[in-house]
Amino acid sequence: MKIGVDGMGGDYAPQVVIEAVNSIKGEFDIVVVGNEKALKNELKNAEIVHAEEVIEMEEEPQKAIKKKNSSIGIGIALEKEEKIDAFISAGNTGAYVMFSVLELGRIENVRRPALGVFFPGKNGYTFVLDVGANVESKVEDMVDFGIMGSMCVEGLIEKKNPTVGLLSIGEEEIKGSYFNKEIFNLMKEKLPNFYGNIEGHKILDNVVDVLVCDGFVGNVLLKFGESVVDTVWWAMKEGIKKGKIFAKLGGILLQKHIKKELGRLRYQKYGGAILLGVKGVNIICHGRSDAETIRNAIYTAEKYVKKRINKKIEENLKRRKNGKNNLF
Amino acid sequence: MKIGVDGMGGDYAPQVVIEAVNSIKGEFDIVVVGNEKALKNELKNAEIVHAEEVIEMEEEPQKAIKKKNSSIGIGIALEKEEKIDAFISAGNTGAYVMFSVLELGRIENVRRPALGVFFPGKNGYTFVLDVGANVESKVEDMVDFGIMGSMCVEGLIEKKNPTVGLLSIGEEEIKGSYFNKEIFNLMKEKLPNFYGNIEGHKILDNVVDVLVCDGFVGNVLLKFGESVVDTVWWAMKEGIKKGKIFAKLGGILLQKHIKKELGRLRYQKYGGAILLGVKGVNIICHGRSDAETIRNAIYTAEKYVKKRINKKIEENLKRRKNGKNNLF
Repeated sequence: MKIGVDGMGGDYAPQVVIEAVNSIKGEFDIVVVGNEKALKNELKNAEIVHAEEVIEMEEEPQKAIKKKNSSIGIGIALEKEEKIDAFISAGNTGAYVMFSVLELGRIENVRRPALGVFFPGKNGYTFVLDVGANVESKVEDMVDFGIMGSMCVEGLIEKKNPTVGLLSIGEEEIKGSYFNKEIFNLMKEKLPNFYGNIEGHKILDNVVDVLVCDGFVGNVLLKFGESVVDTVWWAMKEGIKKGKIFAKLGGILLQKHIKKELGRLRYQKYGGAILLGVKGVNIICHGRSDAETIRNAIYTAEKYVKKRINKKIEENLKRRKNGKNNLF
Repeated sequence: MKIGVDGMGGDYAPQVVIEAVNSIKGEFDIVVVGNEKALKNELKNAEIVHAEEVIEMEEEPQKAIKKKNSSIGIGIALEKEEKIDAFISAGNTGAYVMFSVLELGRIENVRRPALGVFFPGKNGYTFVLDVGANVESKVEDMVDFGIMGSMCVEGLIEKKNPTVGLLSIGEEEIKGSYFNKEIFNLMKEKLPNFYGNIEGHKILDNVVDVLVCDGFVGNVLLKFGESVVDTVWWAMKEGIKKGKIFAKLGGILLQKHIKKELGRLRYQKYGGAILLGVKGVNIICHGRSDAETIRNAIYTAEKYVKKRINKKIEENLKRRKNGKNNLF
């Protein structure tokens, strides 16, 4: 197995990528795509594929897609040519998703690929999708997201028959928009492990394994949630600053510890957002990813390949198309 | 001026209401609506209007609306009869909104009332609406929300010409759903202080004074945000528990302090969600509100009445209907 990593993507590239790759102990090979000069001195035990260009973080995907010689462009091309089995980047999400969908193509019966993220909470993880691959989704797409999410959770967390919830503004079936009610009904019919509606304040209780929402809401949620954690951290530091001597002392003793706990909530055990529905294994990490996050993404990609999750998605969507609702 | 308060609404009623009302020092009278027996012994300096029934927190609004003798039903009726100038409750939000809209009616030219909440962040407050009065909104409604929100911020925070943002998934005009693009264009045309799109992670930076989103997204955000704060607090306590002796000591010294800071993020200086667009001054507090939150809601209601915010909303919507876009 060969896992490709974008050497140039993210705010702290190539340093964090080098650190991550050098720390990997797996029974697979790593290919780092990026500027050879910037990579070759420090990188150990990894093949380098040179890429002349870099897609900047703020570049418009429509423009970026023309940069075929960028690290993302070459990485996705290597994946298409089956020279690597997966490709990971902490770079420009929009460009990465566009490259993946256009170059790799969609798995049979997938109308819309989706981005999913494991939300850490009080009782483990909930895989939330779509967090922004689409701005407009149809009722049927949302059911597909439920199926793709289930396969992903089953493979990566190794949980049999994961439950699927629908993000809504009330628990009862009748609550929510007309769009949501239609989805509710179709999910009830098509997904054997459909749990029902999940409200905003229940997401982090991890009541369900998979939570489906449209890409607009999911994207807002993901970004907002992250900023809430940041703001709490900031408020705490302000509190410590303003506090009396005991609070200050407490702060000094505790700061590192809290930071670690908040880090668990912020950065992902699973490394990043997983793009589901394309013919490839693609994980996009946060721009601010550290080496640990990228390492986690590499291991997640390895497991995704090993568990043949895309094959399962394909088979299950075909079954559903043929009128069979039970997933397997 | 007379401010009405629901004596029976919320998880800690009537105790927190009694405590809040007893602590009020304002140049206005307070009317508490609720079970006379439960209230009369402890309540000082407030008139009591007896209500035989209580609407439970989990009751379906459609059923609850029949309880005309409930504390919410009687409170809204008193407001309608102009015996009180405002009515505050920490009870069942759905029932409260339904009672308000049906009994008090809408301000002229308001098609949809909206619920707004001040989100505390790093740089003050952003008034976010709609947070759940509607499940489906039209493009024009969203512009109205922007106008109503501006009047509310101008009156309550006393900030001239507040800026209005639109919640979206990218900063550029072209980003977001078709629905959002239409809103963007109409806001640009109709709102002189339109700032543009705001992404999820920018909400708590308080870049804009008013942030407009549809009731579905707003409701999910509000509930999710609260749960993130709770989860961070939980994670910290877990961290302290698991920590070594120094972390534990730090935790003990700091716990109270952090709790206070998190409280600032969780509970509101302004007391609750403000229902805009009805012929009345109506604030719904969180079910878990403490006495301080309810006291803040009472002072917010007083200011809202004093500043004649509803009159301003009415005048500005009329101006807009007559083709004048400048707010005043």
